[in-house]
Amino acid sequence: MEMKKVAKCAIAALTSVAALTAFAAPALAADNNGYDLNGKGVDALSQHGGAQRIAGVYGNAKARNVILFIGDGMGDSEITVARNYLHGVNGHFDGLDKIGQPGAAKETGTGQYTTFSLGNNSNDSLMAKDKKGNLAGSKTAGVITPVTDSSASGSGWSTGTKTYNNAVDVDVKGNPQLNLIELAKAAGYATGNVTTSEIQDATPAVLESHSTERACYGPQGKWDGKTDTNGDGKIDPATDGNQGKNCLADQLKVNGGIGSISEQLLDTRADVTIGGGSKYFNQFGLDGKTLWDQAKERGFQTVQSGDVDGFKALKEANQDKPVLALLGDGNLPTKFNPSVATKYSADKDANPTVCTPNKEWLGNKGASLADFTDKAITLLENEQKGKDKGYFLQVEGASIDKQDHNANACGQIGETDDLDRAISAALAKVDLNNTLIIVTADHAHTSQIVEAQPYYALSTVLRNADGSKTTISYGTSDSPVYQDENGDAIDNDEYTQGENGDANTAEKFDGAMGNMSHTGTQLRIAASGPGASRVDGLTDQTDNFYTIANALGLAADTDTQKTLSENAKVAVKKSKDGKYFAEATGFNGDAVLSYKLIDTASKKVVAQSVDKTPVSGVRVATTGTTTIAFPADFTPAEGANYTIEVTGRQSGKTVKYDFIRQSGTSEKPGKTDERGNETIAQGGVNKPLGNTGSVVLGMALVAIVLLAGGMLVKTAKKRF
Amino acid sequence: MEMKKVAKCAIAALTSVAALTAFAAPALAADNNGYDLNGKGVDALSQHGGAQRIAGVYGNAKARNVILFIGDGMGDSEITVARNYLHGVNGHFDGLDKIGQPGAAKETGTGQYTTFSLGNNSNDSLMAKDKKGNLAGSKTAGVITPVTDSSASGSGWSTGTKTYNNAVDVDVKGNPQLNLIELAKAAGYATGNVTTSEIQDATPAVLESHSTERACYGPQGKWDGKTDTNGDGKIDPATDGNQGKNCLADQLKVNGGIGSISEQLLDTRADVTIGGGSKYFNQFGLDGKTLWDQAKERGFQTVQSGDVDGFKALKEANQDKPVLALLGDGNLPTKFNPSVATKYSADKDANPTVCTPNKEWLGNKGASLADFTDKAITLLENEQKGKDKGYFLQVEGASIDKQDHNANACGQIGETDDLDRAISAALAKVDLNNTLIIVTADHAHTSQIVEAQPYYALSTVLRNADGSKTTISYGTSDSPVYQDENGDAIDNDEYTQGENGDANTAEKFDGAMGNMSHTGTQLRIAASGPGASRVDGLTDQTDNFYTIANALGLAADTDTQKTLSENAKVAVKKSKDGKYFAEATGFNGDAVLSYKLIDTASKKVVAQSVDKTPVSGVRVATTGTTTIAFPADFTPAEGANYTIEVTGRQSGKTVKYDFIRQSGTSEKPGKTDERGNETIAQGGVNKPLGNTGSVVLGMALVAIVLLAGGMLVKTAKKRF
Repeated sequence: MEMKKVAKCAIAALTSVAALTAFAAPALAADNNGYDLNGKGVDALSQHGGAQRIAGVYGNAKARNVILFIGDGMGDSEITVARNYLHGVNGHFDGLDKIGQPGAAKETGTGQYTTFSLGNNSNDSLMAKDKKGNLAGSKTAGVITPVTDSSASGSGWSTGTKTYNNAVDVDVKGNPQLNLIELAKAAGYATGNVTTSEIQDATPAVLESHSTERACYGPQGKWDGKTDTNGDGKIDPATDGNQGKNCLADQLKVNGGIGSISEQLLDTRADVTIGGGSKYFNQFGLDGKTLWDQAKERGFQTVQSGDVDGFKALKEANQDKPVLALLGDGNLPTKFNPSVATKYSADKDANPTVCTPNKEWLGNKGASLADFTDKAITLLENEQKGKDKGYFLQVEGASIDKQDHNANACGQIGETDDLDRAISAALAKVDLNNTLIIVTADHAHTSQIVEAQPYYALSTVLRNADGSKTTISYGTSDSPVYQDENGDAIDNDEYTQGENGDANTAEKFDGAMGNMSHTGTQLRIAASGPGASRVDGLTDQTDNFYTIANALGLAADTDTQKTLSENAKVAVKKSKDGKYFAEATGFNGDAVLSYKLIDTASKKVVAQSVDKTPVSGVRVATTGTTTIAFPADFTPAEGANYTIEVTGRQSGKTVKYDFIRQSGTSEKPGKTDERGNETIAQGGVNKPLGNTGSVVLGMALVAIVLLAGGMLVKTAKKRF
Repeated sequence: MEMKKVAKCAIAALTSVAALTAFAAPALAADNNGYDLNGKGVDALSQHGGAQRIAGVYGNAKARNVILFIGDGMGDSEITVARNYLHGVNGHFDGLDKIGQPGAAKETGTGQYTTFSLGNNSNDSLMAKDKKGNLAGSKTAGVITPVTDSSASGSGWSTGTKTYNNAVDVDVKGNPQLNLIELAKAAGYATGNVTTSEIQDATPAVLESHSTERACYGPQGKWDGKTDTNGDGKIDPATDGNQGKNCLADQLKVNGGIGSISEQLLDTRADVTIGGGSKYFNQFGLDGKTLWDQAKERGFQTVQSGDVDGFKALKEANQDKPVLALLGDGNLPTKFNPSVATKYSADKDANPTVCTPNKEWLGNKGASLADFTDKAITLLENEQKGKDKGYFLQVEGASIDKQDHNANACGQIGETDDLDRAISAALAKVDLNNTLIIVTADHAHTSQIVEAQPYYALSTVLRNADGSKTTISYGTSDSPVYQDENGDAIDNDEYTQGENGDANTAEKFDGAMGNMSHTGTQLRIAASGPGASRVDGLTDQTDNFYTIANALGLAADTDTQKTLSENAKVAVKKSKDGKYFAEATGFNGDAVLSYKLIDTASKKVVAQSVDKTPVSGVRVATTGTTTIAFPADFTPAEGANYTIEVTGRQSGKTVKYDFIRQSGTSEKPGKTDERGNETIAQGGVNKPLGNTGSVVLGMALVAIVLLAGGMLVKTAKKRF
C-alpha cells in the first residue's frame, strides 16, 4: 500500500472518532404541553441499564439454563395471524402459547415491553458526510426513536444497553457492551446461538460481536468470497464484494480494528452456533486464509451450506471443539412458499389463500429450527452434564420479520410455525424447574388482521384451519421501492423472490411488493421457569438482559462486569519460528484490549494498538487466550528492557509485563506450551532475540500489503 | 293502526324467528393442510363459557369490589402511541401502566387475550333478505370471525358468551345472556356503568340490555325525540327518526318485545349510570311519555345534557334513587381537538403535530372521565358502607376507538389520557387488598407506529413529550367512505367533524378521512387486586367474565344462574284505578319472562306474552319487581277461575298463581302496597272485577295505537 492511501486511511479513522463521540447528542428540549415527561433523557437512557423499567426488582429464582426464543418481528398481531391460520382462531400453539401460561410451570410470567431505540444510523447515512465533513449518520444516533431495528433491539436484551438502530452491542458512542454469551462464558456456562437467518444478521450477531454497523458481515463486507463482482477476471477481496460500504473502516482488522461480525464470532467462540450465512465465511482474513479455514484452524467443527448430514452427525460441542454449522449460503429457506399481497379483489375473498409447502425447506431433510434446537440442547446438556452450571441458548425464528417486510403472509406464518415447533422441541427436553424459557420478539411488524380488504393497502385473505378467513392488511410500506433480504434497496428489474423467500423473481409481484415497516408498539414477552415472573407487567427490552443475567447469576451491572477482569494476566512468548507476541488471559470483563510496548530505557512506545475509536484495538478471545501480535518490524535489542501494558477497554484493568532485563524472575524461563511457544520469563530473557517472522497486525498508520494464498489483500478503495 | 299493518308486523316477526334460529350455522368443514385444528367449532364456542381458554382455572381470591376499565379500541399500539406523546417514549402512565405492575399490589397480572367473534351482522345485512326470503344477515352470524366489534366483544366479557358482531348480550341464536350487572345485583352488589360515549353505545349497553342489534338505542331508534326529520311540521315518533332500521321489530315493546337499549337500561337499574346519549331519552315510550319522564317516575335521579352542576350535586345512589346522568346529547367531547391524517408530506416531519385542548371538553368544568369515576366510586362506596359486599363498576374510555376510526391521533391520545387519569382516580380511592381493578380493551385498532411516513397510507407525525417524533400510519381504511360516529355511512358532502370529535366539517379533511378498521390481534389485559393473576398468560375475552364473576362470587355458569330464579314469586294485583296486572319478583336468573293467563274452566289462554323470538316477552326488572300488564280487553268474569303462569326464559322456572276462585288462600286478601295497589289473593278475589283502565302491552298480533302527549306513536313504516 502506498503512503498516500495510508494517510487517507488515517483521516478516515479520525473522522470516525468524531462521528462516534458525536453520538451522544444532547437531550432535546421537551415541550410537553402540560403533560408529564416522566421518562428519562437520552443521556440517562444510553447508559448501561439506563432504560430498565424495573431496575432493582430482581426475581430471586436462579436457573441452571436459560433459553431465549426470539421471533423476529413477531408482534402480537403476527402471533395471532399465524395462530388463526395454523390452528384456528380459537386454537393455540402447543409451544409458543404454553410459555408463560399459568400451570405449565411453577413460575410463569407474561407481560409487555417497550422496544424503542436511540437513533437511526443506516449504512447510507453513516457514509454520507455533512457540511462540516462529519459523518451525517451521527446526527440521528442518540435521539429517542420510537421504532427499533433488530440490531438495536437485540443489543438491548443482549447487553442491557439501549442504543441506536444499526448498532451491534455498542452503545450510542460506539463503546462495546458485554453480551450474554460473553458474560455466560465468563461465569462458566456453555453457550449456543441458533437462527434461521444468516448467522451474521443482527439478532444472532448481538451474541457474537460488537459492530458499529450491522452489515459488517465479513472483512470484505457482504461478499460471498467467490464472485468476481467487478468482472476483472480475478477473485480479489480488495476490489470484489462490497466491504467498503458495509463496515466502519476503523473496525476492520486491516486498520487495527476488532474485525467484522464473522471474525468476531470466532473470537466469541460459543459452543454451538447453527444458522445460515455460510458464504460469508468464504471471505479472506488478514492472514489470507478463508474464514472457514480460520475456523478449522481454531478447532471449530464446521458444517457448510447444504451439508445436512454433517449437521446430523454432530455429537459434541465444547470450547475445544465448538460447532459452527451454517447450513445455507444466506438465510435459510422458509417453510411455506411465498404468498403475494395484492390490492383489493373480490376473488381473494371467494378463493382465500392456502399456503403451500416449500420443497427447499431444510425441515424436509431433518434440519428445521426445531431440529436445530433439539440438537443444540442435546449438545449443551451433554457438555454440562454433572456440572453446577448449565447453558445459555438463544434460538431465533428470523424470517417472520423478513417475510413480513415482504408482505408475504405464508412466509411469515410458516416461520412462526417453525419457531413454535422449536419451542415444543425445547419443552420436550428441558425441566422447567431448572430451566427458564423466555419467548418474545425484537419488535412488532406490519401485518394487521382487518375486517375486510382495505381499499388502498396490499392485503392477503387466508383460509384458516377452522375454515374461517383472516384478512391481513400490509399498510406500512413507505415507498414502492424493492429491497433485498438485507433491507438494501435494489433496482426494480433486479428484484426477485425465490423459494427460500429471498429476492428472486420480481416480475410476478407486479409492482405490488413494497418493503413493510417495523412498528413501535409494546409487545409480548412470556416466560416459564425460575425467574419467569420478572417479565410480568410493563418492562423494557433492556430489562430482559437483567432477567436472564440474574437468573444465571451473571455479572449484570457495569461495576461487577469490571471485576471479571481482576485476575487478568499477560505473558510474552516466542513461537517456534521465532515470532514474539503477547498472550492475554482473564480479561473476562472486556471485549477489546489495547496495549503499549515500551522501551523501558528510552520510555519510547515502540509499538501499540490502534485506539482511535472504541472498535479499534485487539478483540478479546472470550474466556480464552487473546494473542497480541507485535509488529513485524519490532526487533527487541538484546539485553534491553521492555514493558508491555495491556488494558481492558471496558474494565480499565491494566496488566504490565516486563521482559528482557537482567534482574528478577517470577516464572521459570524457557517454559514451552503444547503448541511449542516458549514463554519469555517476566523480568528476564533466556535467549538472544533475533529478527524473525512477519506477524502482521494493525498499528497506527501502519498497514501492510500481504500476499496470501496467491491473492492480494488490499483495503477497500471506497472506504479509504 | 290498521290491520294490514298489523299483519305485516306479524310476518316480520316470524321471519326474524327464522333468522335467529338460523344463527347456529354448522361448523365449517376445516381443511387444515396438515396443521392442527386445536380450537373448538362454532357449536361449542357459541355456548355460554364455550370460548374460555382457562375454564376451570379459577383464581381463589375474592374481591369486595371490581372495577373494569375498558379503553375502547385501545390495543398495545394505541397505548404506546399515547404514552410516547404524553409522557415520552420511555415514560409511563401513572394509572394505566400501574395496573398489573408487580409490586403495586399483592396480586397482579398481565397477559394477552383473543377477541374474535362469531359472525358479522350489521344493520344493513340484517335488513337485507336473501333469495329464500331469509334475512341475509343471518348468513354470517355463527361463523368464526377474526375481528370483533365492540358489541360482540363487550358481550363476551359481560356475559361469558361468544357471539356475533352487532349482538348485545344475546348469543348467536339471539338468546339473552345474563350480564355482570344483572348477576352482581342478584348477588347483592351495588353496580355502576360509566362511559364517555352515548350510554346506548355497545360497550356500556352490554351492562344494561339484551339486543339483537346494537343500534337499537330507543323505541324510535336513533332519533333525538325533537327533530322533525321528515319535515312534515310535526314531531312524530312514528314517522320521524330512524327506528325502522335500528331495531329488530320483535324487540320493540309495541310488538311485545323487551324494548330498546335505553328502555332496558331503566329495567336493569344500575345504581350509577354516567355518560352521554341524553338526547335519545327524549324519545317516547309506549305510555307516550319520554324516557326521561319514565326514568323520573321510576325514581331515577336524572341529569341531562350539559348539566354539570347537577352531576356535581349528586350525593347518593341506590336502588330507590339510582343515578342516570347523561351529560351530553351524544358522545362526550374529546379532550383534544382533532388532528388530521394526511398523505406523505415533508412538512409533517419538519413540523410535527402538537395536540391542542378542546374548549368543549367537559373535563374543563370538572366532568372528565376521572371525575365520573371518582363520583361513581364515592357513591357506590357510600351505598355499600358497612355491608359485606361492595360493588361492580365498569368505566369506559370510549372515544379512543371512535377517533382511531377517524384517523384522528390527537383525539385518540386525549381519550387515552382521560382513561389513564380515571384509573389514577380509582387508585386514589380504593384498597387493592379488597378491590380488583382490571384494565383492558375490547379490540385493537388501526394506528401503527412506523419508521417513516408511509407512501400510500394516511399518517400523522407527532411531537412527543420528550421531543422525539412518533409517526402514526393509518392504513386499514377499507374505502374512502365517510361515516358518522356510529359507523353509519353518510354522504361525503354531509360529512363533518366537530369539536367533540363527532362528524361536523367535512371540507377541511379534503377527502383524506376514511373510516379505519378494528384489528384482530390479541391484546393486553392487566389487573391488580384479588384474583388479578387470572389474567396472566393467554386467555380469551370471555375468560374475563369468569375472572370478575369468580372474584365477586357471582353465578358464573348457566346452571348456577338458573338457581337464581328458584325463589321466584308472582302475584296478581289491581291498581287504584282498577287495572289488573301481575307482579313477578325473584326471577334473578332471568332477563326475560313469558306468561300465559288461562281461564281454568275452559283451559283457554286468554292472554299471553309474545314469545316469537328470544327478545320477545317481558323484560325483567333486575332484582326488582317486574310488572306484567294484562291486555286492555281482558275482562275477568266474576267468580271465574284464572291461572297465570310466568316462566323465566333463561332459567326455565315457572311460577303459577291462581286467582278469582272460591277456595284456598295463601295471602291475606285485600292487602294494599305503598303505591295503593291491592293484591288479589291467591286462590280468591275480594271484589267484583270491572273493566277499567287501558293498560297497553304487546300481545301477539295486537298493537295499539296510542295517543300520548298529543303525539301519535306508530310503528315504523320501514320495518313492518
